[in-house]
Amino acid sequence: MSSILKQRVRYAPYLQKLRTPEQCVELFKHGQYLGWSGFTGVGAPKVIPTALADHVEKNNLQGKFGFNLFVGASAGPEESRWAENSMILRRSPHQVGKPIAAAINDGRTQFFDKHLSMFPQDLTYGFYTMNKPDNSNLDYTIIEATAITEDGSIIPGPAVGASPEMLSVSDNIIIEVNTTTPSFEGLHDIDLPINPPFRPPYPHTSADYRVGRTAIPVDPSKVIAIVESNVRDKVPPNTPSDAQSQNIAQHLIEFLEHEVKVGRLPENLHPLQSGIGNIANAVVEGLASSNFKNLTVWTEVLQDSFLDFFESGSLDFATATSIRLTEAGFDRFYENWDEYSKKLCLRSQVVSNSPEIIRRLGVIAMNTPVEVDIYAHANSTNVMGSRMLNGLGGSADFLRNAKLSIMHTPSARPSKVDPTGVSCIVPFASHVDQTEHDLDVIVTEQGLADLRGLSPKERALKIINKCSHPDYRDQLKEYFDRSVFYTTKKKSLHEPHILRDVFKMHLNFEENGTMKLDSWDQKF
Amino acid sequence: MSSILKQRVRYAPYLQKLRTPEQCVELFKHGQYLGWSGFTGVGAPKVIPTALADHVEKNNLQGKFGFNLFVGASAGPEESRWAENSMILRRSPHQVGKPIAAAINDGRTQFFDKHLSMFPQDLTYGFYTMNKPDNSNLDYTIIEATAITEDGSIIPGPAVGASPEMLSVSDNIIIEVNTTTPSFEGLHDIDLPINPPFRPPYPHTSADYRVGRTAIPVDPSKVIAIVESNVRDKVPPNTPSDAQSQNIAQHLIEFLEHEVKVGRLPENLHPLQSGIGNIANAVVEGLASSNFKNLTVWTEVLQDSFLDFFESGSLDFATATSIRLTEAGFDRFYENWDEYSKKLCLRSQVVSNSPEIIRRLGVIAMNTPVEVDIYAHANSTNVMGSRMLNGLGGSADFLRNAKLSIMHTPSARPSKVDPTGVSCIVPFASHVDQTEHDLDVIVTEQGLADLRGLSPKERALKIINKCSHPDYRDQLKEYFDRSVFYTTKKKSLHEPHILRDVFKMHLNFEENGTMKLDSWDQKF
Repeated sequence: MSSILKQRVRYAPYLQKLRTPEQCVELFKHGQYLGWSGFTGVGAPKVIPTALADHVEKNNLQGKFGFNLFVGASAGPEESRWAENSMILRRSPHQVGKPIAAAINDGRTQFFDKHLSMFPQDLTYGFYTMNKPDNSNLDYTIIEATAITEDGSIIPGPAVGASPEMLSVSDNIIIEVNTTTPSFEGLHDIDLPINPPFRPPYPHTSADYRVGRTAIPVDPSKVIAIVESNVRDKVPPNTPSDAQSQNIAQHLIEFLEHEVKVGRLPENLHPLQSGIGNIANAVVEGLASSNFKNLTVWTEVLQDSFLDFFESGSLDFATATSIRLTEAGFDRFYENWDEYSKKLCLRSQVVSNSPEIIRRLGVIAMNTPVEVDIYAHANSTNVMGSRMLNGLGGSADFLRNAKLSIMHTPSARPSKVDPTGVSCIVPFASHVDQTEHDLDVIVTEQGLADLRGLSPKERALKIINKCSHPDYRDQLKEYFDRSVFYTTKKKSLHEPHILRDVFKMHLNFEENGTMKLDSWDQKF
Repeated sequence: MSSILKQRVRYAPYLQKLRTPEQCVELFKHGQYLGWSGFTGVGAPKVIPTALADHVEKNNLQGKFGFNLFVGASAGPEESRWAENSMILRRSPHQVGKPIAAAINDGRTQFFDKHLSMFPQDLTYGFYTMNKPDNSNLDYTIIEATAITEDGSIIPGPAVGASPEMLSVSDNIIIEVNTTTPSFEGLHDIDLPINPPFRPPYPHTSADYRVGRTAIPVDPSKVIAIVESNVRDKVPPNTPSDAQSQNIAQHLIEFLEHEVKVGRLPENLHPLQSGIGNIANAVVEGLASSNFKNLTVWTEVLQDSFLDFFESGSLDFATATSIRLTEAGFDRFYENWDEYSKKLCLRSQVVSNSPEIIRRLGVIAMNTPVEVDIYAHANSTNVMGSRMLNGLGGSADFLRNAKLSIMHTPSARPSKVDPTGVSCIVPFASHVDQTEHDLDVIVTEQGLADLRGLSPKERALKIINKCSHPDYRDQLKEYFDRSVFYTTKKKSLHEPHILRDVFKMHLNFEENGTMKLDSWDQKF
């Protein structure tokens, strides 16, 4: 037993339960229901999942040693190995990585995506374990800790996620104590699940509000094993911003400046939410170099770009449920721990993504879709209606409840045969995750469409004219005009569509690799 | 001035501003932005809208004397007259009645529907008046009162709706004091709008919670006219339950009994939300005659069936933002005022439909869609994707946030040529208002599909097998099988679709009056 492990585990009885990862393998059986800590690729268990994957590979158990697996959002590379070995029978609510997407899209894994604010709550309601043969608890929760308090409570690492809820409905708990990562003690603010009819209001009225609990309490008798881990979190390098995403950010910042000028936003804005990816990075960079001061952030995940944002002096406080940094980012974070830890707080995902709090604070939400349609429905999940990317995540938690709900996207993306083969503005979203009732603003590198208070027909013209790629503008305008003509005859002119034609751009892409049609009369 | 008016208006200065409805006409100009009180056809202004419609008809001003009109939800027959006279240029967020739907669907009225919880908030943010030429306030709010307090505050009638928010952003206020209706004093509980960053938590932790304000405060200097009204609210007769809706209710009650039995709901359930229509009536009748006791209701509108529900002794308390009764129902309500008023409370629609409170209380939400698809997306608004019915209403406020989100619908509806010409279960909803991430249960007269924790493919089989009409079951199953085959080849098996075929049932309905296809290879 390492001296650092003894130092981190301040509740001695747990040390009696120390095992190696390999000694944990015997605990698991095909078909069990497991919870893992972790969110957006950090804070997930590592050494036990690795031991289980080794076991499957060594004994050729692929397809015969699988689990119903729940993770707050995505886990790390260990999850990808599980997917490659067909170890994930069922999975919710969000995933990232080619192997797990492949398992979902070839039918090996039954996946369902659920609002990240809602998933942990519904888990405690027993909704996701009700078809379990014995009882409706999780068989195991495997949670990564960076320290254990004197009463056996768990101090997570860089993610809180759904851990409080998972631990509350687990028959057995296994703790991976990560001794390579510094202890994150003091960085978390933990709300415990309380279900109706006894649920009180969340008291949060600002981004920096703290309820004051810094560890997740558990019943020590449920802890059946602890394991030492010395594997660091590894996330892929961030996608840097480029000219296109910087253009998008520029449109957005001008818009926010205008809202302040006309008095619809205060000078320091409202708390900001932004996602992952190069547009999100460009927006954060743009904000950091803007004239906005005393900003706050209420979001689900913080990336490396936030370190610069803090250092710009414009950001007063940021809160999320995970801090997903690269190894270099974590090193930078640990070196300046005293500075960052005063301005940062990690919460459970039911709180970071809480509709109640998002709406109360008037959050400004920004998110990237797969595609948006001319009436402002957005597809966040399924390419061509069927192929799952990563899942819904918290997009709808934020976009439904924010004061300003913004989707940003390139106007077009390259296909194999055409540099603008995929239009991100389409007649009809091939899968709808965000409805026309949820989005206020669409922005591309072409421009920004402010949709507040507009009817569907007014929205369509604005989105086509301001946001669509010039290669598609006439084609989309023609769809709209034809639809207006068609629905005028049918007296159904509220949201004009010709159902025969709505997916012709998608069908042409499937057949010819581009959404550019020869004609709207083209047959498929 | 009638003695009853003097008695109802306890703030004397208002009586100096008494006008006839006709004397109000001169206040109005084409293109103004108006707020009306009212919700679900009750509590709206009546005599001033009538005088304005008379003015238009007498002077042939159709199309030249129109307004941007906002009503909490639908108003009464006066709104229909406005629509017939093309007096509604723009309208939000919800409407009922053939003339207003006709004006929207033939393009005379620009309509946008917004979540009912969100509309009043966004109005106070200035989002719906930002394109107004002068300032961003409403020009007038016309509000029906049943009494005025000593400080000039307004006691509404059978609807609170968006009145508190409208009054807070109106340059001028006109009050219609309805002296035919009894005073509703004591029945309301009014929350005032407070915007971020100063918004506190809503304190409500049970259906009968009261903040204690029984009237809406106004700045008396903004009240420019009061008018006496003696026109009663008139709503059409309720649609009685029938064998089909009673079957649906029976499935639902068995489901709720099962949830209690397995411990996922308490014996008195959680607060119930139900909508309008014969299925809602059947569900309320079913609950009233069930073994459930001490039930509570947290909903947006109460109908006549609730009077029986109260009298059954099973219902302890009900709260909504409007009480929409027939004239006979209101008579019954007034006769037993002392009894009902103890068990009833009307709130503003931002509170009755608050995501925050709905989720906290664990509401059981029930709603009827236009159609549901095999993966559990639902269309609540646009028939055949384009033709607006009534609008979104509060459906998504409740279905997104409820503990149990239930949609009930007949499995099929008659068309002109086929008694089951319209399947309410379709491959792909022709408009999506509720996403697959929002619905837990679908129920038709055929059966109930419990979708919790299921992947899209599992959901599809359950919905088709349990809920679809036997006339469509094989056809839907064939669509699903073909889609699985197609997406297996394409490795996009998460939510199998063939975009070429998704709307063939709708297209066949448009061409042949029935959704029954000869073959899925049929061309359109």
